[in-house]
Amino acid sequence: MNVTLGRRTRQYRSVTFDAHTNTVRLIEQRLLPHEFRILTTRVFDETARAIRDMVVRGAPAIAATAAYGLAQGARAFRGHNLDAFTRHVEAVCRTIQAARPTAVDPVNALSFVCARMRTGGRVAEQQVLALAAAEDFANASAAECRALGEHGAPLIREGLRILTHCNAGWLACVDFGTATAPLYAAHAQGRRFHVFCDETRPRCQGASLTAWELGQQGVSHQVIADNAAGHLMQRGEIDLVIVGSDRTLGRTGDVANKIGTYTKAVLAARHGIPFYVAIPLSTLDWELKSGRDIPIEERAEDEVLGAWGVVEGPKAEGRRPKGLPRVYVRIASPGSGARNPGFDVTPAELVTGVITPVGIFKPKELWAKRRKLGWQG
Amino acid sequence: MNVTLGRRTRQYRSVTFDAHTNTVRLIEQRLLPHEFRILTTRVFDETARAIRDMVVRGAPAIAATAAYGLAQGARAFRGHNLDAFTRHVEAVCRTIQAARPTAVDPVNALSFVCARMRTGGRVAEQQVLALAAAEDFANASAAECRALGEHGAPLIREGLRILTHCNAGWLACVDFGTATAPLYAAHAQGRRFHVFCDETRPRCQGASLTAWELGQQGVSHQVIADNAAGHLMQRGEIDLVIVGSDRTLGRTGDVANKIGTYTKAVLAARHGIPFYVAIPLSTLDWELKSGRDIPIEERAEDEVLGAWGVVEGPKAEGRRPKGLPRVYVRIASPGSGARNPGFDVTPAELVTGVITPVGIFKPKELWAKRRKLGWQG
Repeated sequence: MNVTLGRRTRQYRSVTFDAHTNTVRLIEQRLLPHEFRILTTRVFDETARAIRDMVVRGAPAIAATAAYGLAQGARAFRGHNLDAFTRHVEAVCRTIQAARPTAVDPVNALSFVCARMRTGGRVAEQQVLALAAAEDFANASAAECRALGEHGAPLIREGLRILTHCNAGWLACVDFGTATAPLYAAHAQGRRFHVFCDETRPRCQGASLTAWELGQQGVSHQVIADNAAGHLMQRGEIDLVIVGSDRTLGRTGDVANKIGTYTKAVLAARHGIPFYVAIPLSTLDWELKSGRDIPIEERAEDEVLGAWGVVEGPKAEGRRPKGLPRVYVRIASPGSGARNPGFDVTPAELVTGVITPVGIFKPKELWAKRRKLGWQG
Repeated sequence: MNVTLGRRTRQYRSVTFDAHTNTVRLIEQRLLPHEFRILTTRVFDETARAIRDMVVRGAPAIAATAAYGLAQGARAFRGHNLDAFTRHVEAVCRTIQAARPTAVDPVNALSFVCARMRTGGRVAEQQVLALAAAEDFANASAAECRALGEHGAPLIREGLRILTHCNAGWLACVDFGTATAPLYAAHAQGRRFHVFCDETRPRCQGASLTAWELGQQGVSHQVIADNAAGHLMQRGEIDLVIVGSDRTLGRTGDVANKIGTYTKAVLAARHGIPFYVAIPLSTLDWELKSGRDIPIEERAEDEVLGAWGVVEGPKAEGRRPKGLPRVYVRIASPGSGARNPGFDVTPAELVTGVITPVGIFKPKELWAKRRKLGWQG
């Protein structure tokens, strides 16, 4: 998507590969929204470290980074000995996988690249195939989000006021995003609308990342406290809700997403406001039989007891500060602790529709449409 | 209520008067929860400035401060000329009233003290009456909260898990608080229970002030993100909700309170969880005929776009840091703006009961019980 630095507007993906220098180029997401910088990794260990250290976040973006990291490692091998090369590739895979051990997306990405490599005979051939596979993986991921956006765009009618929660944007994907993809598609079609970004405490990905993305694309938006959405709905100021998902159950239509999503779904239902979830196919879980079975991660108390920000932010858009130190401030009473569930589950009955790369479905329809949705059972 | 500094526990009110030195003593609320300090004002202008500069906050606490400030000003008058004294008192009233011009509580407090003063003949007599009236006003305010707490305490059964929103605690009143009063009364009766404090973005009065209060009284509690309450209710981890109110409509039972209260009421109703509002009688509005007529203040964008905290907080309770600088950090994207409604309105249908100093009533009962509730129509 577009990023404007000073007067210059360029197109970016969250991760790309430069074949000439064998480097992976990542948007340094830990500095956003206060500073935009590209991190270039020269060897696969550095790429793995960037995954581990959260330079890149969001399952699709991490998966593409893993694919590129494997290609980078494979291409760095010098020699013609296929056994040595294969052992080297296995070591590369282990290193990358260990960078985010609980995530399934990088595993799938590495398997995809490995399978394509093995169709080659010699080392040099496998090296060429590795990069081609990584590029195909990233392109397919971007294309999936683009398709999702095109299916969802007709929902974003002229003049609508839309609520989003957290960041399910292009930064978390290779491009376009999930919840944001229909917004970007409608914006590209010339429609005007307004987006309320839930700040999404405790980590405030809505206030920082989604607001930054929408600002860069020129989409009208405002940040609101998570507390304010109910009031705005009550006053008739929100027409549609659109969110992403960390896991959507193909058998039931229940949706796990960032903490607070369930609350917005309950409010939307009370006010008769459509509530949509936008997902790539990799988010579908065809195994679990109930939303209650989805494990909910309890995260660190410090997230709730304080916040990260910059002490002196620039006031005007377009100014790019350098090296702004992001600091943690303690907000809560010094002696108090916190509960911090990271996600919640929205039952299918509260979801109007699931926007996918192959169309929009009612949550209860997903199982019937499972073959179209990539189920391999 | 109790405040423990180091090993020493003392009883405090948010505001008191020292007749010997003619000073008003206020808890410096702008430093909490990171530092506990008493501000002493020696002349009525200083007391007015403390009101204006938010040293003291919460309608009942401000009203008592105004009453004491008037007594302080009246007692500082030197001479026997009654006309000159009366003009002086009028000037004192104007100064104090101008410190928080939109609030109705200080006006009522000043009227109460003035009326009592006028029953006296000579200057010296009126000066004595002024202080007696101010003390009576503050004592009545504290007694009202204590009565409210005693009526509400039976709701706080052993083992309950209770959700609160914002700070309707003793710091905002003279003592005991409103939403907190039943908790403190039940705690004093030896019952054990656990309180989840909504952090209450954007100003985080729940994370800072309510959590501090509960910690000081030894009440088991945890801070949660406003986003987490729905999830906890869904998992059966909240049994009761209790909040304060800025204005409760006597004719309808609709409740205006801090932004986010409505959301919690909607969630509580969905989960069949009782939702109580605790109010002093001064909060009742007998005029307005609909919750939609309550004006909702839009507050500064900066509140939503960032947060206030301390960069280095103490880790252990009981340590009292000195002079910790509270800083503002920008969280949101530099180019983005915000909507910031400060309050919302919870319709009577979502309120289980209204806890008052004279008993607990269903919201629709308030009008029928209006004489008991102090209506003077």
